Amino acid sequence: MSSADPFASSPSPDLPGAVGEFGLLTPGSAGSPAEAATGDVAFLSAMLDAEAALARAQAARGLIPAAAAEAITAAARAEAFDVRGLALRARAGGNPVIPLVAELTERAGTDAVHRGATSQDILDTAAMLVAARTRRLVLADLDRAAAGLAALAAAHRNTPMAARTLTQHAVPTTFGLKAAGWLGQLTAARGRLADLPLPAQLGGAAGTLASFAELSQAEDDAGLPLLRGYARELGLAEPMLPWHTLRAPVAELGAALALVTGALGKIAADVLVLARTEIAEVAEVAGGGSSAMPHKSNPVLATLIAAAARQAPALAAVLLGALAAEDERPAGAWHAEWQPLRELLRLTGGAAASAAALVERLTVRPDRMRENLRLTGGLLVSERLALALTPELGRDTARRLLRDATRRVTEHGGTLAEALRGTTPLAEERLRELTDPTRYTGSAGALTDRALRSHRKEDSATPPPA
Amino acid sequence: MSSADPFASSPSPDLPGAVGEFGLLTPGSAGSPAEAATGDVAFLSAMLDAEAALARAQAARGLIPAAAAEAITAAARAEAFDVRGLALRARAGGNPVIPLVAELTERAGTDAVHRGATSQDILDTAAMLVAARTRRLVLADLDRAAAGLAALAAAHRNTPMAARTLTQHAVPTTFGLKAAGWLGQLTAARGRLADLPLPAQLGGAAGTLASFAELSQAEDDAGLPLLRGYARELGLAEPMLPWHTLRAPVAELGAALALVTGALGKIAADVLVLARTEIAEVAEVAGGGSSAMPHKSNPVLATLIAAAARQAPALAAVLLGALAAEDERPAGAWHAEWQPLRELLRLTGGAAASAAALVERLTVRPDRMRENLRLTGGLLVSERLALALTPELGRDTARRLLRDATRRVTEHGGTLAEALRGTTPLAEERLRELTDPTRYTGSAGALTDRALRSHRKEDSATPPPA
Amino acid sequence: MSSADPFASSPSPDLPGAVGEFGLLTPGSAGSPAEAATGDVAFLSAMLDAEAALARAQAARGLIPAAAAEAITAAARAEAFDVRGLALRARAGGNPVIPLVAELTERAGTDAVHRGATSQDILDTAAMLVAARTRRLVLADLDRAAAGLAALAAAHRNTPMAARTLTQHAVPTTFGLKAAGWLGQLTAARGRLADLPLPAQLGGAAGTLASFAELSQAEDDAGLPLLRGYARELGLAEPMLPWHTLRAPVAELGAALALVTGALGKIAADVLVLARTEIAEVAEVAGGGSSAMPHKSNPVLATLIAAAARQAPALAAVLLGALAAEDERPAGAWHAEWQPLRELLRLTGGAAASAAALVERLTVRPDRMRENLRLTGGLLVSERLALALTPELGRDTARRLLRDATRRVTEHGGTLAEALRGTTPLAEERLRELTDPTRYTGSAGALTDRALRSHRKEDSATPPPA
Amino acid sequence: MSSADPFASSPSPDLPGAVGEFGLLTPGSAGSPAEAATGDVAFLSAMLDAEAALARAQAARGLIPAAAAEAITAAARAEAFDVRGLALRARAGGNPVIPLVAELTERAGTDAVHRGATSQDILDTAAMLVAARTRRLVLADLDRAAAGLAALAAAHRNTPMAARTLTQHAVPTTFGLKAAGWLGQLTAARGRLADLPLPAQLGGAAGTLASFAELSQAEDDAGLPLLRGYARELGLAEPMLPWHTLRAPVAELGAALALVTGALGKIAADVLVLARTEIAEVAEVAGGGSSAMPHKSNPVLATLIAAAARQAPALAAVLLGALAAEDERPAGAWHAEWQPLRELLRLTGGAAASAAALVERLTVRPDRMRENLRLTGGLLVSERLALALTPELGRDTARRLLRDATRRVTEHGGTLAEALRGTTPLAEERLRELTDPTRYTGSAGALTDRALRSHRKEDSATPPPA
Repeated sequence: MSSADPFASSPSPDLPGAVGEFGLLTPGSAGSPAEAATGDVAFLSAMLDAEAALARAQAARGLIPAAAAEAITAAARAEAFDVRGLALRARAGGNPVIPLVAELTERAGTDAVHRGATSQDILDTAAMLVAARTRRLVLADLDRAAAGLAALAAAHRNTPMAARTLTQHAVPTTFGLKAAGWLGQLTAARGRLADLPLPAQLGGAAGTLASFAELSQAEDDAGLPLLRGYARELGLAEPMLPWHTLRAPVAELGAALALVTGALGKIAADVLVLARTEIAEVAEVAGGGSSAMPHKSNPVLATLIAAAARQAPALAAVLLGALAAEDERPAGAWHAEWQPLRELLRLTGGAAASAAALVERLTVRPDRMRENLRLTGGLLVSERLALALTPELGRDTARRLLRDATRRVTEHGGTLAEALRGTTPLAEERLRELTDPTRYTGSAGALTDRALRSHRKEDSATPPPA
Repeated sequence: MSSADPFASSPSPDLPGAVGEFGLLTPGSAGSPAEAATGDVAFLSAMLDAEAALARAQAARGLIPAAAAEAITAAARAEAFDVRGLALRARAGGNPVIPLVAELTERAGTDAVHRGATSQDILDTAAMLVAARTRRLVLADLDRAAAGLAALAAAHRNTPMAARTLTQHAVPTTFGLKAAGWLGQLTAARGRLADLPLPAQLGGAAGTLASFAELSQAEDDAGLPLLRGYARELGLAEPMLPWHTLRAPVAELGAALALVTGALGKIAADVLVLARTEIAEVAEVAGGGSSAMPHKSNPVLATLIAAAARQAPALAAVLLGALAAEDERPAGAWHAEWQPLRELLRLTGGAAASAAALVERLTVRPDRMRENLRLTGGLLVSERLALALTPELGRDTARRLLRDATRRVTEHGGTLAEALRGTTPLAEERLRELTDPTRYTGSAGALTDRALRSHRKEDSATPPPA
Repeated sequence: MSSADPFASSPSPDLPGAVGEFGLLTPGSAGSPAEAATGDVAFLSAMLDAEAALARAQAARGLIPAAAAEAITAAARAEAFDVRGLALRARAGGNPVIPLVAELTERAGTDAVHRGATSQDILDTAAMLVAARTRRLVLADLDRAAAGLAALAAAHRNTPMAARTLTQHAVPTTFGLKAAGWLGQLTAARGRLADLPLPAQLGGAAGTLASFAELSQAEDDAGLPLLRGYARELGLAEPMLPWHTLRAPVAELGAALALVTGALGKIAADVLVLARTEIAEVAEVAGGGSSAMPHKSNPVLATLIAAAARQAPALAAVLLGALAAEDERPAGAWHAEWQPLRELLRLTGGAAASAAALVERLTVRPDRMRENLRLTGGLLVSERLALALTPELGRDTARRLLRDATRRVTEHGGTLAEALRGTTPLAEERLRELTDPTRYTGSAGALTDRALRSHRKEDSATPPPA
Repeated sequence: MSSADPFASSPSPDLPGAVGEFGLLTPGSAGSPAEAATGDVAFLSAMLDAEAALARAQAARGLIPAAAAEAITAAARAEAFDVRGLALRARAGGNPVIPLVAELTERAGTDAVHRGATSQDILDTAAMLVAARTRRLVLADLDRAAAGLAALAAAHRNTPMAARTLTQHAVPTTFGLKAAGWLGQLTAARGRLADLPLPAQLGGAAGTLASFAELSQAEDDAGLPLLRGYARELGLAEPMLPWHTLRAPVAELGAALALVTGALGKIAADVLVLARTEIAEVAEVAGGGSSAMPHKSNPVLATLIAAAARQAPALAAVLLGALAAEDERPAGAWHAEWQPLRELLRLTGGAAASAAALVERLTVRPDRMRENLRLTGGLLVSERLALALTPELGRDTARRLLRDATRRVTEHGGTLAEALRGTTPLAEERLRELTDPTRYTGSAGALTDRALRSHRKEDSATPPPA
């Protein structure tokens, strides 16, 4: 580090010198595919891939010798670089590409490295490469989760349970419809993420591609075919314009990731309710233990997903806020994107993997669902009774009758059927049928089928772009 | 309000009793189309429209008498309702639909109002109606803004100016490319917003449509055609499933609005830099005055847009966070959406209108741009010189030469051409050409043309869905 | 509005012309003291109060005639002003003070209005006045809530219930300790809010107070005593420096409000769990009804508080973000504060009032708590057994024994005491005692007493500053 | 990892297996004291310190043998543990303490480890230890920054410069006052952070301390003195109650850190404006280089601080949001705190170190400030003229006169003094004096002195608590 090192005179901490994060505080993603795909080595690899792709694309257009491109490609192997050293040297210029170029130049033995490019070309491209690679892993886990949800929805198409609104039993529904809702929302969010174009970045110092024209000593728009070639080398989308300071690709990615994490968070929120000791309608097969309580079996996966869903929106907000970036390269807004984007990719990836595991092995207890359905003595079909009695008694009388019966059930126990007996014009059998919660699930089955059909259609569609 | 009124015993404030907001703290949207479209009366109208549409859709299927639907439609006029009274009565149940239904029932003289529906069916549908109506207005202003930007980009395709990175002059660019970037990003964000399906909501108490099956005394999936008919009556999209607790439509809308506001915020951020007293490359035609300083002419529109861009991401984050919602209707996550969604619609609408005005009447000063380009004595083409000298001198020698010349210019003034004279193998004329900032704009023109072509294509496309 | 009106050519919406918000979407605060205290009229009043205070403070120092100050004070009555008109005229300059000064000048018949001040002096002061007035109301409701919580904690000091961790029964606790925790955290957050100094703002055009020195034709620091006098007139704190662009007072206020709302949100989160149909340990006395289901009794107050707690952090984040404000008055960061600050005051005020009502009339069901405690057959004291058996059996044997017994209880029912019978060296009576959940509440009572003592001490302390 | 590993069947990524972060994407903190103090090893150390402190506090009360406490203390050395292995094993239970206890038990050779404690006791305590250790480092850097700011304020007490409002020259101010404002706000934010009590955590499984009473086989409140002893061992504050689910300590810490980062962000925002090529009133001594442009000297430190200020509010919002946490340990809200808290500590620490370096070596250019002051031909004293002329001409005439003169200056150049010559009753010399920007700085000097006095007072105060 140069003499400009701002930390040179900071007091040294009386702590172990080791730095670095290895997942200790992020059990939601530790060991997940996305964790490895978003670490510093993965970013370093992606930066090197970007430099190598640029060299090859330039060689293909005669801007640098083919041998130089080969040497650069050969030297661009992350294992050879000292990631911590780069991190420390990055401070002087504010980004890691500057020291990386110096080191790559030396290793490749050619000064054709990074010719005409700006740091942001490489760092933005690397971020998109990391995003593309992580996305592939995330989509695979989302597909596992979706398959599991589809299986749950199909298996429990007709499993009645209590629907809950504002925490209270409302009317019956089915567990199939609940799973179908999870599936439908997750599939839509997955589609949004999969469809997002992830563009390469190349613009030169200020996005005009002028340096590449200068290099080619040709007409002014020599940079455009280079941009295309570079994007192709990388398997990334070609942007309409260099986007150094048009940050929608990052902001949209952030929103799409938060959407996915939110869709997973919905599943976790429901599992956490249904797994409560008093409700016990679902359980994680291998619940987490406790350091103090031998009997505990915690819904750990749902907890970790819920934790991710609480963080993702704030990170997405930082990325959305970075849209308001001044000039041709902003002083701060750009730099503020890097870590939140990485965290968001990792959180989403961890949550997707956790969700796949959660869903594939969720214990569902139809018997408990039926027991809970009976908890209110049938009160949760009072809506149905209100509708059934209105034609004969009028709405007001029907409602009064039900209110009285509800009060009796609430205060003295028993069932709604018992409380209503003899007070309505309905025959006994009809009353029993009307007050059977398991027979008031409306279109739950048809809606479940709809979601399953839609999922199967999505499933057979073509794979996402790079 | 019932005796449950939590505020009954709160001390009365010694302040004017008047409540309400009329835009005093929101000059960014006061008087804008979006402001009127998102006020309480607009929401009230939309709720009434939802109730009337439900009645008509039910009448069309024989679930209620046609006369009842007509009476409901006739009574569903916002002017007749006391919006403040509804707001106060909304507290008891936590949402305004409950008192609205009571009042509409009385006014329409039929208890066929709201038959089988739940409050959320109406409130969510109303939010989507308001969103659809506001979107139409926002898109119109975005189109005005885009047209203005396209005109600026075309007019200044070849107007050179300094590109700035990390606040410093970097290399030349053109004002046309800057405007083209604004245009490209805005058009993309507009498209995202325009394409978003805004679904009607209908599910009954817990999203199974069971009440509608009960009403029709038919098969269990009688609710599905009703859902379709209801959506058609409203001109909203038909959802695959009721989405009481699958909140992606709201979360995605929030993200799309924040994206638009961010794209507008980018324009404002640049205008605020370029309008600085020392830079003065652009100005708002009718800058805002000051209460203290007679000479001030402030970039007020850009300021108000920038203020919107600082608020939108946080509001979008609240909506993204509401995805993690438990049960069939969450206790809080749903209620937390209403005001942020409204604010976001209003902020975006105000920013769009301000941006249209800003762009249509922006003063651009090519002469100042040229003056500023000369400020650094040509240093901002040092990149070009480095590239041009490298083949003959090697990268290191070229860089050293330039570093020395740069130091001389920085310390003693003069131009880069002067400082380099005699130190390079370049002929005098070639040196003059290479150091002319206005001749180093690379593909700026071609990129501008690309963005203009893309805009014209978008422009002739079909209008957005409801 | 001037010809600069950016909205002049916007298409007129085909919607009712009425604008304004009256609480329809904010049932959490509709009708609350804080709502009235934060409306546009309240802000208008506060701006007029600031202008009048400035005039009087200037008159006291001979800067303007006493008669002018009297005329200004007399004219500064909000009822006389057209708040909507001011809102519309505010657009031209970007803030409402500019048109307000024009109108007040006319009404007061003197051009001594606003002498030497800048718009921000008035608007910031008004925001702090509104904050101070709203704070008084909020603190009163927080005191009601705290009193209610203290009563609950005292009454239920020895009421055993299940503690729940990661949604599962863990070990026993008491409802008294739960209420004591609510109380302790709320009291601390209340103290943070109450202690915050709310400063007046006065700096003139750019915070140097130069205009006031000019007016006094005296020494350069004539502005300092005026600043003090002005603050005293208003009952606000005197700032060390003008804080036009040193926004900590607003950012800290935002954080303090979010802290209060979060402390209330904790209470709501617990109530929502405990009120669940399956748990039913608490209930809101007058639960909210449903538009569809006659039997529902929803925890509406807790829901509305929870909704506030989901919004407050994002609004506080906007205010914290406004600290990074450039120049002597930022272009956007300042303007972005107004509405979020108002919303945050209103949300917090509504939540405080709701919490007071919730707590004062919460139904607590010790019998249900005992029933739920027994749900796991005593498994939730397995920790205690592990500790009690370890000395005699060693940790590993003790844990294995408990794990086996736990499995038997989980699979076959019965109680932990039964499952352990004959497998441990413990006497029957000791085993019964050790497995009685109601006798394993540790220091819950002592901790409850601690929190109650601390609350009583706070309570007898002096009232907060202005 | 157990068979419950959710990632077991995830596809393995075709990327380098290495995981971990080493600062590559966080140049704002890479190499800073806070980075080392917040890494995984630092957290691991702190967890081990918490376990050892618990053992010693228990030994001191006879709950475990003294030898066991010694063995535990000796074994609790982070170097011996495999941080990555712990991270991976943490997934099963959702937190790293569970595997840590197993490993520490084995290494210490005693099962007295973690006796009666719950994972959260250790993890929360560790977070507070890390916070306390990092805070010490941050405060030292803040003190360096404050000293540098005080020196700037004193040196430039009388250096006139243009004040800028809404990006435009407004009236004169001094650089001393600007620096004094930075100082005042930073000192206040520092005080807020320094004063925050950072409590130890100890409550046992659900916060009742019941396990410790069981262990002591004594009265029920045996846990209270243990809590006190434990906190003393650690040098942390003793909490009134266990705060497993009363998260104000974390939320307040988050707000305080965001406040500090915001105060630093204000400095950075101003430096970024003043360092612009066209303004050039300040510069970073050793500006950052560019990978493309040899002449660039970027305000890198200000950029990195600005980037931190853009992220901190969102992270603080996550922590504020975690207040709304259900039960005795929430399923997600707690887990969502860990990484944001760490990031916030690191961001703040990096920004503090960068700010110290920035401020200590900031180049200030009084000559450029004077040049820029003259840019508008004296228009930025038009306020003063308006005030000076009003007594003789009346406000309206004075304003008209100035408006006309302003227009002439704006359109035709020249100075305000020239444009006014002969149109006012003022003598030539008086006019010259009135239009000299350097003589209209009001109380800037006195305010600067105030801030310096306040800083000196703070500075001699006692050091912050642990």
